[in-house]
Amino acid sequence: MSSFKQIVELIADDLTAVEAKLTEQTASEYSFVDMAVQHVVEGGGKRLRPILVVLSAKVCGYEGSDAHTLAAVVELIHVASLVHDDVLDEAAIRRGRETLQTKWGNKVAVLVGDYLHARVLSMLVARRADDPAMAILADTTQAMCEGEVIHAYKSGDFDISEAEYLKIISFKTGKLITASCTLGAHLGTTDKQTLEALTTYGQQIGTAFQIVDDVLDFTEDTDKLGKNAFGDLREGKLTFPIIYARSVCNDDEKQTLEKVLNSNTDEAEAIAFVESLFQHYGVEVHCLKVAQNYADRAKVALTVLPEIPARVALEQLADYVVARES
Amino acid sequence: MSSFKQIVELIADDLTAVEAKLTEQTASEYSFVDMAVQHVVEGGGKRLRPILVVLSAKVCGYEGSDAHTLAAVVELIHVASLVHDDVLDEAAIRRGRETLQTKWGNKVAVLVGDYLHARVLSMLVARRADDPAMAILADTTQAMCEGEVIHAYKSGDFDISEAEYLKIISFKTGKLITASCTLGAHLGTTDKQTLEALTTYGQQIGTAFQIVDDVLDFTEDTDKLGKNAFGDLREGKLTFPIIYARSVCNDDEKQTLEKVLNSNTDEAEAIAFVESLFQHYGVEVHCLKVAQNYADRAKVALTVLPEIPARVALEQLADYVVARES
Repeated sequence: MSSFKQIVELIADDLTAVEAKLTEQTASEYSFVDMAVQHVVEGGGKRLRPILVVLSAKVCGYEGSDAHTLAAVVELIHVASLVHDDVLDEAAIRRGRETLQTKWGNKVAVLVGDYLHARVLSMLVARRADDPAMAILADTTQAMCEGEVIHAYKSGDFDISEAEYLKIISFKTGKLITASCTLGAHLGTTDKQTLEALTTYGQQIGTAFQIVDDVLDFTEDTDKLGKNAFGDLREGKLTFPIIYARSVCNDDEKQTLEKVLNSNTDEAEAIAFVESLFQHYGVEVHCLKVAQNYADRAKVALTVLPEIPARVALEQLADYVVARES
Repeated sequence: MSSFKQIVELIADDLTAVEAKLTEQTASEYSFVDMAVQHVVEGGGKRLRPILVVLSAKVCGYEGSDAHTLAAVVELIHVASLVHDDVLDEAAIRRGRETLQTKWGNKVAVLVGDYLHARVLSMLVARRADDPAMAILADTTQAMCEGEVIHAYKSGDFDISEAEYLKIISFKTGKLITASCTLGAHLGTTDKQTLEALTTYGQQIGTAFQIVDDVLDFTEDTDKLGKNAFGDLREGKLTFPIIYARSVCNDDEKQTLEKVLNSNTDEAEAIAFVESLFQHYGVEVHCLKVAQNYADRAKVALTVLPEIPARVALEQLADYVVARES
């Protein structure tokens, strides 16, 4: 059995409770809204963020149902961002299903994303007044948008450095993954060292996760990926492998790469060029090594925590983030 | 001096404070995000919702700076919805300026809308724990999305009734206008009758406001409107005047109207047809009369409140909502 399946099995009851919350908390009296929302919420995905909330709560000694609510909250924020991303990227499939805009058009897709955010707000309002979740998530959603805006704005800026890119993804992707860990931790502890350990863990796997996501766009086929392969490339998006390749290739290759990203070449030719470039410079191997370094740092951060099954699961999850195939 | 200018003058200091909050609360460390946000936030508009918050607070005896924060919050929610609407409608101008997607593309526009919502959450988090604002706005933003989704989904459904349409606009537009009044009122009072009076006032002017908005799309020129005239018609949107016209015209005209809304006719011809249809059946006069009835009911609701300048201003505002030319 894969380590991911083991993790899912360890917290199977919790994940069932999270799914129930997701359905219950997004219900609308309008059946069309309900259907459109369920289409994306039930669309599956790995539920990485809910898993992080539940495990982070457990590793801090918390076992109650608040973890399920917060797990549903972070997943809804994530799904809302995917729905909007798909509008932006004009993506046709996601998680192996038709996207909302393919089924019902852009309007419905933008609005369903907004609706999910509104439901998140409702879920947070219903909680305790002294709850740190609201402040954490206000900060998180703001950073996610800033990261996304900057990434969109910088597309076409070939001089973006690896450091700049890592900062953008720490906002775009890292913040919500980190929040998943800290929200869970806050349920069980107020100990500063523990909270910091889980924050660091979240930051490190967040970066690893996005780097691997960037790599998978080039190496996976559409079926496994659940979305269109080479989507980032088609979009002309500067991602980690491209930024690395650009830093090691020669001037001619650099020029061709810029043409490819500006869509000035035939699509099949573009893909063939990038694949051979990546092959030649060992781009995939390099990027996965960088991602593994982040995962390793994440695991080191956990050493201050008790060696209970939840901690082992978090360690396995760090490796899974790098080893996953979709 | 117009009654609207008088109202603005009465609360000039408050509105200056609201503008300062708007700028201060949307600042980003990223200069591009800052610029894009300021482009829409400073884009003007009438600031109807901030005016309602301030006047509703005053009429309930509240004079502090919390009204300015909540006024900024409702305006940001409104601006965020406009930004997303413009993406949906592919609008090129708004409030007399280029829209975000014209200047920087759809991505930036969707994300700036999301960013504004995130800032709203931050502003709410910073408030008192017993504050009812969060719950009111969670409910409001959810209803706004539901109304918008249903309106988008129902476009092309010619059998939508006036009652159904009024329900949709009470969600889409009415809820935030109502929330502006109740948020202000809650600052000054816990008296149930007073809160109900301002809720009713908000609901009635909300409906009046949207009906007049629908009418202005057909009767105003692009310059005055600050957005493209006949935009709703081009979009094939079913609005109040169209629903009324359809209920009184003959079968031939009904068929032509459906063709027009399905964009099966030349644009100039379509506009000419709708203008003559409206002329023949007195559609504009009828709709404005309906809107005035709502405004009158709004004013009646205020009679339980003390006759101070803020109440007079709210009464004038109800009439202004119907009489305005843009």
